[in-house]
Amino acid sequence: MKKSKKIIVLGGDGYLGWPVAMFLSKNNYDVLIIDDYSKRKICKKLGIKSLCPVKKLDKRVSSWNKISKNKIKYEIQNLRDYEKSKPIFNKFQPETVIHLAEQPSAPYSMMSYEAASFTLKNNLETTLNLAYLVNNLDTKAHIIKLGTMGEYGTPNIDIEEGFINIRHKNREDKFLFPRKGGSLYHTTKIQDTDLLYFYARAWQLRVTDLMQGPVYGLHTRETKFHQNLWTSFFYDGIFGTVLNRFVVQAIAGFPLTVYGKGNQRRGYLNILDTLECIKIAIESPPKVGELKIFNQFTEVFTVNELAEKVLKSAKNIGLKNLKIKKIINPRVEMEDHYYNPVCENFKNLGLKANRLSDNYLENLIEELLIYKSKINHSEILPNIKWK
Amino acid sequence: MKKSKKIIVLGGDGYLGWPVAMFLSKNNYDVLIIDDYSKRKICKKLGIKSLCPVKKLDKRVSSWNKISKNKIKYEIQNLRDYEKSKPIFNKFQPETVIHLAEQPSAPYSMMSYEAASFTLKNNLETTLNLAYLVNNLDTKAHIIKLGTMGEYGTPNIDIEEGFINIRHKNREDKFLFPRKGGSLYHTTKIQDTDLLYFYARAWQLRVTDLMQGPVYGLHTRETKFHQNLWTSFFYDGIFGTVLNRFVVQAIAGFPLTVYGKGNQRRGYLNILDTLECIKIAIESPPKVGELKIFNQFTEVFTVNELAEKVLKSAKNIGLKNLKIKKIINPRVEMEDHYYNPVCENFKNLGLKANRLSDNYLENLIEELLIYKSKINHSEILPNIKWK
Repeated sequence: MKKSKKIIVLGGDGYLGWPVAMFLSKNNYDVLIIDDYSKRKICKKLGIKSLCPVKKLDKRVSSWNKISKNKIKYEIQNLRDYEKSKPIFNKFQPETVIHLAEQPSAPYSMMSYEAASFTLKNNLETTLNLAYLVNNLDTKAHIIKLGTMGEYGTPNIDIEEGFINIRHKNREDKFLFPRKGGSLYHTTKIQDTDLLYFYARAWQLRVTDLMQGPVYGLHTRETKFHQNLWTSFFYDGIFGTVLNRFVVQAIAGFPLTVYGKGNQRRGYLNILDTLECIKIAIESPPKVGELKIFNQFTEVFTVNELAEKVLKSAKNIGLKNLKIKKIINPRVEMEDHYYNPVCENFKNLGLKANRLSDNYLENLIEELLIYKSKINHSEILPNIKWK
Repeated sequence: MKKSKKIIVLGGDGYLGWPVAMFLSKNNYDVLIIDDYSKRKICKKLGIKSLCPVKKLDKRVSSWNKISKNKIKYEIQNLRDYEKSKPIFNKFQPETVIHLAEQPSAPYSMMSYEAASFTLKNNLETTLNLAYLVNNLDTKAHIIKLGTMGEYGTPNIDIEEGFINIRHKNREDKFLFPRKGGSLYHTTKIQDTDLLYFYARAWQLRVTDLMQGPVYGLHTRETKFHQNLWTSFFYDGIFGTVLNRFVVQAIAGFPLTVYGKGNQRRGYLNILDTLECIKIAIESPPKVGELKIFNQFTEVFTVNELAEKVLKSAKNIGLKNLKIKKIINPRVEMEDHYYNPVCENFKNLGLKANRLSDNYLENLIEELLIYKSKINHSEILPNIKWK
């Protein structure tokens, strides 16, 4: 039997991190999670709760290790502490590191000075330290960083996959596709791309940057094995992504809150596809010194289209009091714009996308219906303004 | 008489900061310097000294205030401490803030983990805090940040002034010119541009970014008034810029150390032109919500051309033992490349450039000759490698 490959999942306690860790363990990887509970701490401070209950990491890991051949290990460690992180990396000698350890909320990054400062420090210091930690390793592990499609903004030209050939005054060169983030959070993700792009060139590191769109969904194959293994499902204005929020609003009998005109177009994907994309990225590492970029989404929708889809599915399963309400956009963003991002790399490597079907949405709503009484109505409306 | 305008110079104790502060004071601005001596601390730790003696900031300021109508004020404060910086900004209510408070050395940023981490934290946290400090002000001061031409790298197309119109698949949009920095330091400057570009759009701040080339020279009109007012002159491999280094090498009878082939082309400027550029930038503020970018250099040279120029001038004034030595390039950079940066904005606003003449170089060498015995030979060679 093939020896299992060593992989570190930074932020392995998160909405995506935990399912990723189990999925890789299931796929014969030897997984070490490193997490410092910073998202749990923010949630506690702000009084935000996942709709479904989420077990502590030790409970999750022990439950998983009871049923899995490959045991997951974990360390509670803040990667901003370089000296304490170094022995963990050096001892484990990973072949791949998945970097999901960033503060992931745009509204949070715009909430206050303290939140902005935390976002900047957390996201940039962890990424700088990661470059150093990996450069110290004998294995020179492949770094896979979760970026965001939001780094590109909404330009009036097609969004290529990370790089663009620019022809200008009869000369030509290949560049990082110019970025223009819509929040401080998005800006820190642009900055992380720049950091790892630089060290890839200077130190001949291998880096993959996944430009991911907003993710939706509750379950993966692995989370379904046991209630202890469920991931989080946020519906608040800070950590809830738009489709997950609409689903909870429909269940609560709240109007689906569309920001502004609702013509904002973005690329979305199912949490199941996040797992597949990460697996493909691991198995197709970049060359030495290369930054490889994938655009990671499967379908493009406007916010209005998402709201209509949720409305329809909620109606199909008999929910009442369904309506859509356009509210003043708390963000600074274009509400009518061109949006045509390219997404070929994953398709070419065999990704079979899960489409957002009525059936999928109906199942998702039904699975969450039992938590209707747990919905905290005061969390539903956005309360952070960009200005 | 016109009331003097309030201006803060962050990093006003530096090679450029101090001459800028005096120049603006002379030009009827009410100047407040904020500096935390971090560069002096680095120099002390690394045993690096300016060739000519440099007075402490209190001495500089009191000497200047004896001869100047407009008195310079100063505060020793680290801008990374937001809470302590806030009352200083709020009390002074500047109309303009010149941001020269960044760790400015590419080699330093590549020296060690500690130096890299300091560079990232210092440069990004001060810039984030500055955005918040200015947004709190009634005056919504105009931010002028010193960037670097090094943010662009050496692309194979002409380097426009900050932005570029990209035509792609029959559509068009205007973007930040794509950046590709050659060191961690340069990368942090790219990141600062992104930070201020974001907050300019989100909060309607007015920001100017000066993409400056390496500066040369010792004196400005104001430094010459008194020995107490001189600025620093570094010739080491960390804080010395290339032309200043060659001048000291020639004086010391050391070979002029060209990195690699020496065909690396960059845009340079005289320290006198830095002052004029900053004055023009102050007097031509951007619109509300705009990031305005100037490329700030006056002439393009290869490293070989600079070495030849210094050699010629040194010979003209009778120095002996002059030669050029090509050494292994400690940096990771292209040594043969296209380089054609646009520099029209300052010219259009009236900048009269000081050219790098034989006469200027001869004077510079003669002024520094008296410090020949102070040259520390162990500082002359570069000792920091990128890899």
